[in-house]
Amino acid sequence: MKAAWEWKAEKCRQICKDSMNPEWLLPESELPGEGQLNVVTFPDTCGLLTSEQVKITKLTANELVEQMHTGKLSAVEVTTAFLKRAHVGNQLVNFVTEFMVEEALDRAAELDDYFKATGKLVGPLHGVPISVKEHVGLKNRICHASYVAWTDHIPKEDALLVRLLRNAGGVFIARTNQPQSIMHMECNNIIYGETVNPYNRNLTAGGSSGGEGASIGLHCAALGIGTDIGGSIRYPAAFCGSYGLRITALRNPYKGVFLAGGGNESIRCVIGPLANSIADLKLFQKAVIDQKPWEEETSLIPLPWKELPSFKPEQITVGIMWDDGIVRPFPPMTRALQNAKSKLESAGVKLVNWEPYEHRRGWDILRCLYFPDTANTQKAILEEGGEPVHPLTEWAFAYGKPRSLSLAENWELNVQREEYRADYHRTMNEHGVDFILCPPYTGAASEIGTGQYWHYTAIWNILDQPAVIFPTRLVTDPQVDKVDPSFRPRNPEEKREWKKYVPEKFANAPLALQVVGKHFQDEATLEAAELISKIVLAD
Amino acid sequence: MKAAWEWKAEKCRQICKDSMNPEWLLPESELPGEGQLNVVTFPDTCGLLTSEQVKITKLTANELVEQMHTGKLSAVEVTTAFLKRAHVGNQLVNFVTEFMVEEALDRAAELDDYFKATGKLVGPLHGVPISVKEHVGLKNRICHASYVAWTDHIPKEDALLVRLLRNAGGVFIARTNQPQSIMHMECNNIIYGETVNPYNRNLTAGGSSGGEGASIGLHCAALGIGTDIGGSIRYPAAFCGSYGLRITALRNPYKGVFLAGGGNESIRCVIGPLANSIADLKLFQKAVIDQKPWEEETSLIPLPWKELPSFKPEQITVGIMWDDGIVRPFPPMTRALQNAKSKLESAGVKLVNWEPYEHRRGWDILRCLYFPDTANTQKAILEEGGEPVHPLTEWAFAYGKPRSLSLAENWELNVQREEYRADYHRTMNEHGVDFILCPPYTGAASEIGTGQYWHYTAIWNILDQPAVIFPTRLVTDPQVDKVDPSFRPRNPEEKREWKKYVPEKFANAPLALQVVGKHFQDEATLEAAELISKIVLAD
Repeated sequence: MKAAWEWKAEKCRQICKDSMNPEWLLPESELPGEGQLNVVTFPDTCGLLTSEQVKITKLTANELVEQMHTGKLSAVEVTTAFLKRAHVGNQLVNFVTEFMVEEALDRAAELDDYFKATGKLVGPLHGVPISVKEHVGLKNRICHASYVAWTDHIPKEDALLVRLLRNAGGVFIARTNQPQSIMHMECNNIIYGETVNPYNRNLTAGGSSGGEGASIGLHCAALGIGTDIGGSIRYPAAFCGSYGLRITALRNPYKGVFLAGGGNESIRCVIGPLANSIADLKLFQKAVIDQKPWEEETSLIPLPWKELPSFKPEQITVGIMWDDGIVRPFPPMTRALQNAKSKLESAGVKLVNWEPYEHRRGWDILRCLYFPDTANTQKAILEEGGEPVHPLTEWAFAYGKPRSLSLAENWELNVQREEYRADYHRTMNEHGVDFILCPPYTGAASEIGTGQYWHYTAIWNILDQPAVIFPTRLVTDPQVDKVDPSFRPRNPEEKREWKKYVPEKFANAPLALQVVGKHFQDEATLEAAELISKIVLAD
Repeated sequence: MKAAWEWKAEKCRQICKDSMNPEWLLPESELPGEGQLNVVTFPDTCGLLTSEQVKITKLTANELVEQMHTGKLSAVEVTTAFLKRAHVGNQLVNFVTEFMVEEALDRAAELDDYFKATGKLVGPLHGVPISVKEHVGLKNRICHASYVAWTDHIPKEDALLVRLLRNAGGVFIARTNQPQSIMHMECNNIIYGETVNPYNRNLTAGGSSGGEGASIGLHCAALGIGTDIGGSIRYPAAFCGSYGLRITALRNPYKGVFLAGGGNESIRCVIGPLANSIADLKLFQKAVIDQKPWEEETSLIPLPWKELPSFKPEQITVGIMWDDGIVRPFPPMTRALQNAKSKLESAGVKLVNWEPYEHRRGWDILRCLYFPDTANTQKAILEEGGEPVHPLTEWAFAYGKPRSLSLAENWELNVQREEYRADYHRTMNEHGVDFILCPPYTGAASEIGTGQYWHYTAIWNILDQPAVIFPTRLVTDPQVDKVDPSFRPRNPEEKREWKKYVPEKFANAPLALQVVGKHFQDEATLEAAELISKIVLAD
């Protein structure tokens, strides 16, 4: 007999199945076999998409809008192409929790009618297909945040960010997967199972916005919406070869995101974009913040989005962080950094080595603030649902103290957090460092079930500094990226993590880098990331 | 035998006594007798100050800077005049905890030397005498925040705001009194006793920044620094006939303020100015924020100070709030509002009646967030010191729940707070109201020991909206401000508060009003207050 939670999970899976257009599904026999790990080009060649549709899905959001503006493409053509690609993409890596075929095509038709009638676009995101992480609430659709106990929860309105993006012309085509508790750097839950990496299906797509990583990495949507409290936008972007922004807290509208533990303000979860170019991240941000979300969500800071001139190489000083002082990056990541360093140097960017400023201290504060009540809030929801608890959920819940903090202990940690933030900022200023270039993780995507080391992303969450992921187009190469036999771990974490590095396991997995700016310098950080990524990606 | 705490209190009183210049003290026999309640003009006529010095102390900060810029006044002259006035003022109303005679005169001499050598001012506050609330830390001076248990606490550096004001040319002349726990709307502690109101010494100077109210109300300093978590800048400003600003949180630098319960971020204490004109409040703010305090205190929002053009009457819509829906203002306050209404109407300001939006709901959230741990933090400090607990301390500590909140309960209240803020903002927008004009309190200053009703100020603390106090130059007039015999209290609070209104007790006590703006609209709120107060104060 099925447990009660299985019926609830089944209900959600059925909604997902029912949301698909059967005509856009490939028969099992035409799908790549389990042994085919890299499926990233499969949608281009599978025959479901016309060559024109394949081309459309390779365009960035900016390019799509431009071509709809000239009338070269219609919103219905664009939406159809991405919806089809999302169907086959989902068959490959299991990233969708619900398609929105009808709603998307209706909206696209409306946009086309408007354009035909007026010659104008509805807004800066006119006709751009968007996918959105499941726990971002949508009106009249179940929003369970991966908890089976919450599978009856149906928001009465769309999340504010969704409304603003739709106002700007965005077309929502699919909702995407996230892990149990939304606190893994991977993407597995009891309802939909695992979302895997399109470059290597033995690896994770990243998490917690793993569905978004797959969606954008496979070009199944032009923009994605993720959330990030420890790296949850950045792992998926990094692991799947796309771009992502962890913006400073209290800039993007968060209203309508469902996450257990709401009201815990010690460390804020932020919402933000994944995309296939920095220009698209900027397009997203400008479209959102130009609508003054602080008029509805009054906790937001009324800082207009600034359009900055591009940086010239000589205008910025970049600190390269080779190591966080706890767990050294694996050989391919160090190679990616070295490659970046030599290109940036040649281009005239001023570089210094960035000594990580007391990252252990930062992590020790942060880990206690994720679940100050020792995750009792989350555990109660899991218990109510009766679902099995995933080992990575247990891993995250165990970060803090083994007992609930008192209010006074929580306050003291808030004070320590502020001191750490101020000390880090001062240290960057003292060294004249404008931006930090660092790994987003020790290497490429982690093997499924093994992602335990959040430090390279999470440190910027406690610091509330903006961070941008960009792909280097380098991949792990087992022939090159061998472990130096003289390597000796400095501590138990390093020992644990380096054990996981078996070069062959990560063949072809993409390597990304992270550009970090100062608190609230979101616009400048995007400009720096644009300059740095252009230099790194140039031949 | 004296209790241990008495020795500690005595030590601090001795520091205060030793800090005085004996030549600037009047003999007891020349001071007004206890029966003389109104002492506000005494410093002008007492003979300690020359007529030139009296004139100097009546100048605003802007006027002082202007006259030092033309060389008409020197900083030493200005500092001396205010220091002398502060000495006699302190003899009248007991507001100083420590004078800084030598330091102030040395700094003034430096400023004069700089001006003589360069013809330039050091900064926008060149030579402006400033008083500062005791719990704002100063390097190498005891900072006890009114707790005898903390009388050994000596900060190693000045509070950030103090450093910025000094950079701008400000001259710190005295530190001022505050109540036990810094959570009374009055000003009494076991160390220095009561600070009384210069207009009527049976009444409070207000609190918790009561020493600042007396200081600025008596023109003993040109600028004052207070803090406000429930009205603590605004009561003193309102009760003593001066101006005060409760700015939006996270704009003014708070680093170095000592308050029990640091790290409780659910309701933030803010620091800000008292002064004798709106222009001086603006001068203060611009001088501070132009120095980018967020570069050191990274929790602050990097919002530059905007210099706005003055409003014209027809440009703003003001909602007049006659009543908070819980305790109606006393007759003199209603008269002050009516007077303002008729003048504003004549001047062409668009007025509407503002229905208070669920103030009870706001207060019920707020009162639980002041001391979520049922004030155990504060009680432990009081117990450590062994000092007697003042009834108004007990009153404030009893605001919340009788037991400590759990973390989850605190989070839930944070969520409710955000919802209330957003609802209030939306309601203002729906009614097209830009600013709210309302009482700061039910009437003039409360009689000593009776101040229990914080709602008219504290509501803007939970809402985190900026609020400016201005004097109407009207005073309570027992002949006019009689209680309508038909008055019937609507609830126990109204009954309790109206019992306190015996018109004769409040004779000559000044009546102030409060102008409230929207979250982060600090600059606009000051401009609105400037326009409104000019109209209200015009003959």
